[in-house]
Amino acid sequence: MIITMKKDAPKEEIDRIIQSIENKGLNVNMISGTNYNVFGVVGDTTILDAKQIEANKHVENVVRVAAPYKKVNRLFHPEDSIIDVAGIKVGGKENIVVIGGPCSVEGQEQITEIAKEVKAAGGVMLRGGAYKPRTSPYAFQGMGSEGIKCMVNARKATGLPIVSEIMSIDKIDEFVENVDLIQVGARNMQNFDLLKALGKINKPILLKRGLSNTIEEWLMSAEYIMAGGNENVILCERGIRTFEKYTRNTLDLSVVPIVKKKSHLPIIIDPSHATGDWELVESMSLAAIAAGADGLIIEVHNCPECAWSDGMQSLKPERFAEVIRKGRAIAQVIGRDI
Amino acid sequence: MIITMKKDAPKEEIDRIIQSIENKGLNVNMISGTNYNVFGVVGDTTILDAKQIEANKHVENVVRVAAPYKKVNRLFHPEDSIIDVAGIKVGGKENIVVIGGPCSVEGQEQITEIAKEVKAAGGVMLRGGAYKPRTSPYAFQGMGSEGIKCMVNARKATGLPIVSEIMSIDKIDEFVENVDLIQVGARNMQNFDLLKALGKINKPILLKRGLSNTIEEWLMSAEYIMAGGNENVILCERGIRTFEKYTRNTLDLSVVPIVKKKSHLPIIIDPSHATGDWELVESMSLAAIAAGADGLIIEVHNCPECAWSDGMQSLKPERFAEVIRKGRAIAQVIGRDI
Amino acid sequence: MIITMKKDAPKEEIDRIIQSIENKGLNVNMISGTNYNVFGVVGDTTILDAKQIEANKHVENVVRVAAPYKKVNRLFHPEDSIIDVAGIKVGGKENIVVIGGPCSVEGQEQITEIAKEVKAAGGVMLRGGAYKPRTSPYAFQGMGSEGIKCMVNARKATGLPIVSEIMSIDKIDEFVENVDLIQVGARNMQNFDLLKALGKINKPILLKRGLSNTIEEWLMSAEYIMAGGNENVILCERGIRTFEKYTRNTLDLSVVPIVKKKSHLPIIIDPSHATGDWELVESMSLAAIAAGADGLIIEVHNCPECAWSDGMQSLKPERFAEVIRKGRAIAQVIGRDI
Amino acid sequence: MIITMKKDAPKEEIDRIIQSIENKGLNVNMISGTNYNVFGVVGDTTILDAKQIEANKHVENVVRVAAPYKKVNRLFHPEDSIIDVAGIKVGGKENIVVIGGPCSVEGQEQITEIAKEVKAAGGVMLRGGAYKPRTSPYAFQGMGSEGIKCMVNARKATGLPIVSEIMSIDKIDEFVENVDLIQVGARNMQNFDLLKALGKINKPILLKRGLSNTIEEWLMSAEYIMAGGNENVILCERGIRTFEKYTRNTLDLSVVPIVKKKSHLPIIIDPSHATGDWELVESMSLAAIAAGADGLIIEVHNCPECAWSDGMQSLKPERFAEVIRKGRAIAQVIGRDI
Repeated sequence: MIITMKKDAPKEEIDRIIQSIENKGLNVNMISGTNYNVFGVVGDTTILDAKQIEANKHVENVVRVAAPYKKVNRLFHPEDSIIDVAGIKVGGKENIVVIGGPCSVEGQEQITEIAKEVKAAGGVMLRGGAYKPRTSPYAFQGMGSEGIKCMVNARKATGLPIVSEIMSIDKIDEFVENVDLIQVGARNMQNFDLLKALGKINKPILLKRGLSNTIEEWLMSAEYIMAGGNENVILCERGIRTFEKYTRNTLDLSVVPIVKKKSHLPIIIDPSHATGDWELVESMSLAAIAAGADGLIIEVHNCPECAWSDGMQSLKPERFAEVIRKGRAIAQVIGRDI
Repeated sequence: MIITMKKDAPKEEIDRIIQSIENKGLNVNMISGTNYNVFGVVGDTTILDAKQIEANKHVENVVRVAAPYKKVNRLFHPEDSIIDVAGIKVGGKENIVVIGGPCSVEGQEQITEIAKEVKAAGGVMLRGGAYKPRTSPYAFQGMGSEGIKCMVNARKATGLPIVSEIMSIDKIDEFVENVDLIQVGARNMQNFDLLKALGKINKPILLKRGLSNTIEEWLMSAEYIMAGGNENVILCERGIRTFEKYTRNTLDLSVVPIVKKKSHLPIIIDPSHATGDWELVESMSLAAIAAGADGLIIEVHNCPECAWSDGMQSLKPERFAEVIRKGRAIAQVIGRDI
Repeated sequence: MIITMKKDAPKEEIDRIIQSIENKGLNVNMISGTNYNVFGVVGDTTILDAKQIEANKHVENVVRVAAPYKKVNRLFHPEDSIIDVAGIKVGGKENIVVIGGPCSVEGQEQITEIAKEVKAAGGVMLRGGAYKPRTSPYAFQGMGSEGIKCMVNARKATGLPIVSEIMSIDKIDEFVENVDLIQVGARNMQNFDLLKALGKINKPILLKRGLSNTIEEWLMSAEYIMAGGNENVILCERGIRTFEKYTRNTLDLSVVPIVKKKSHLPIIIDPSHATGDWELVESMSLAAIAAGADGLIIEVHNCPECAWSDGMQSLKPERFAEVIRKGRAIAQVIGRDI
Repeated sequence: MIITMKKDAPKEEIDRIIQSIENKGLNVNMISGTNYNVFGVVGDTTILDAKQIEANKHVENVVRVAAPYKKVNRLFHPEDSIIDVAGIKVGGKENIVVIGGPCSVEGQEQITEIAKEVKAAGGVMLRGGAYKPRTSPYAFQGMGSEGIKCMVNARKATGLPIVSEIMSIDKIDEFVENVDLIQVGARNMQNFDLLKALGKINKPILLKRGLSNTIEEWLMSAEYIMAGGNENVILCERGIRTFEKYTRNTLDLSVVPIVKKKSHLPIIIDPSHATGDWELVESMSLAAIAAGADGLIIEVHNCPECAWSDGMQSLKPERFAEVIRKGRAIAQVIGRDI
């Protein structure tokens, strides 16, 4: 951590700050510049609060050199983490997983039918929302517990592990009991109470990036879960909010190599929410695989125009199968497989 | 709602869509363009899901003409709403409220001392966080229930109503019992389960704008609370996320006249979180009052450099008093008062 | 074009607007809603100025249904345009071009050496900046005319067509005479005087997307050039500005399928400027090819750490060759070739 | 400047970098951290290129402590600069200037009429565009030289100095001869060739902030003009591009106190382009004055609905007069005057 003092900072104030840092067991080195005095702080600086130091009016700014996350950091865990989701391995150098299913569970027949199609196409997990975060209170809010039951039955029918989104701490027991991969949606990426609660269970967590969160904030949210004891975290990019209007969000594929460099956690891509448009899903899926992603989570619906939510971004099963066929060929070029 | 069909949409598909809309009790008018066919849908279109209609591959796009919110909408409630917070009136044409206090409650002595200073300066409510949303799991997470108790004691000592942030549904009873104005923080603006739960109580809610949420999404979150039955909502702008690096966030003051036009709810401004820098707080506070805001919520700390969180953006009590003095003079110019 | 009037718009005002539109040879259809009156305007609406209509205080809003561009639009030009750059074909279903070279020309030896390496690796054009847009007036501003001469000599030595950025109208003669593909940089995407001047020549133009311009604005800038008579436009995405701090810009690969859908012009990707980090270039290059891009423009330098500008994002020649090798394999999977 | 080396950087590489910096006459201080080695560079670091140093693969990152601008910097010029525009003083502690006029000059009668209204209302300069940057090549592009002549005649009729936008270097002679305050528009903020040319004249320049440029980039563009020798620069904020859709741009008023802190140059606000909506102009104008701005530039048109461009954001003269009346009262509260 580098602390820059203002030009006119009084010596006693500088000494006071140095003293308070050294009292925490860290070492301080001093540099005197032309217009500034600069300290370097040496030691485990994750225990320091940069903003508290910046609150001192004699401090110009504070810059972290070391990343603020530890358990997530590849520096201290050089090998790829491989997360086991009910027998399906996510992460590592070889395998790429494809998850498919509808935005919302709409009934037993719908979800079982789609699950079979997903499996037939080569998908290895089934997604389906039972609790739905909707901008409008007047929109369909999901089937709730009933939807989770339908998912469980679809798993029975197909053997596919199931992924569903949790929105509230009071549903944790229901999810631990029934769901194989518990999704934290973009809007809850910084719902810290939920993250802490998920840190205490040992089910795998699919942590979506918030729609305007930096990669660092996202990794810090993963750190919340891991710091609680649950190290089974899979990251998922689903597009960020920008000024562009032709897509619902802007898919940021550069996160793939960055996350691989900064962290050992697996990362998968959601091209459906990222683009909001089924016509872009194939292209972005193939790009994600070429970029090195560990998997895809794609919306699939047998009747997109009848879907109760997000039909616009859903693929029909035959197109989903086509994406997997092409994706597999690209995966093989870079030494992986689907 | 205006629905534009693609150029080559087959007639039977157009008829099918018209039929399905008319079945919901709405009327459809048709326009034939050179390259497109366009419908106008007449009636209460809040019951239609624009995205579901767009999922049809023959539909080019769907545009809402009417706003998607009802209870929040000034169109159906032309007078300003005035919210009563333990006797303090927020909103309306005359009065402007100023709320002050520390980012975090750090102990009884600290909060009571600051509460007295806030009152002496002319503040009418006390803010103080007991449950703190922090990016890092290693940062101070707030005093919790102990902090709420300290706030209650500070209210006893000064008579100031208290404002504090709720982060989780399971704390609602504690907040209803103890807190006068329950804050929903920016990170929870779309925590829909929390919003629904707050819709069932009758304590006033201070709803902060999410750091990258549009004004429309913000009003829809207010609609969630109001649709549940709790019409005591105060909106609070606290800066949005942009590319600019010299400020923590970008304070969007144009929301003040926009919210006044679209809605009847009161709106207050948080210049402390918006800028992240105490040196900008006075300037932005005066600007907010001149822009027509109904109040300010400002971080005040008697020792910013010792603050456990966000000291950098906190004013000392004497500067807070100065902001109120200047702000009152500006308020009087535009026919209001603090 | 759909025009929505305010609820209380007087009838004579509505009639006046209808009259003024019909006077321009367009037809108007009327829809009466519950709270609004809506017109549909039928005909060539590119001659109408939406903002001028919105200036009327009785108008609620104006929405364009048809795209505001014509020559760029795939609707009126269904086949892919293939642009000929000194014999190299850019665009179409089969071929993918890779352009390589340094950010700045630094001298004859440097550029000729790199040109040979680019050619050996499989690159088909040479890039190199002679006039450099730099944020600081104290930074290296490019070699100017001398740099263009070095590029010309490098072309002689290798046969590679050359690409260089123009920053000012007064250099057009120099560029027409010497440069094969004239680049308009991101900062000049809306330098309309420059675009108009480039519309009058018949050299191919490489039009980069501005760092915070929408796809529609970008296509409108291409329309400026084409409307002037020069139809040889190649689009280039180089990252957009967002809140993310781990990358210099955010590469928006979803533009590839969108541009392919909206327009017939070729689109290539610049992964070097998009990421600002050579470690991300390979991953993003492969992703771009998988997404369907018609080419890549990549910074290559034989000594990145000695580069006078942007060395941080430059590949060494051997890594550039590696990107082409892997990219070719991916291209073949999707039925194309490099 | 603080340079952080990667953990495993070899000693000879570190020594090589230190040597190269010391060869430029700067001093280097070394800090050894737990996982990193950090240098502090002391001296005039504006001559170093941070990106060139970062290109070294052993360097983790480079952080500037000192600002990269010099002539713009308040550190080296503590008093406010006051710019003289044909006798009107802009900047300083006392006076606030208000500039009014139409977006585009549309004819002699129109501009002279509006000029008289602007003067009568209390405006001290006349704005009017003769060369117009328009997104569409099919939109009205301005009257050109004819428009400048109309502006000159309007000045003769009223005595108001005139402000107009320059778009291209080849018009500099025309502007120097005729225009009192030469505006560089947002789209040309980084048209560096234009900035350099304007650095060689001595007419005052009104430099608008680019729609997605940081404050630092904006100050660097001012530095370009000043480094060329022209120190008569006035900054103008006109809104930045964000995700929000209810306003055309987001007005960033926090730039006012920041610019005042970092620089000695005057700053004025353009609420018309910032909001794109005349209904927001009064509110944002008063806020700008309260925030400490040195002036306003407001669009005024005697018939907004007939305006050839941007009528939607134009005030009628009587509302413009009202803004000045209210603004003056607020100015007086903070010890200034209009």
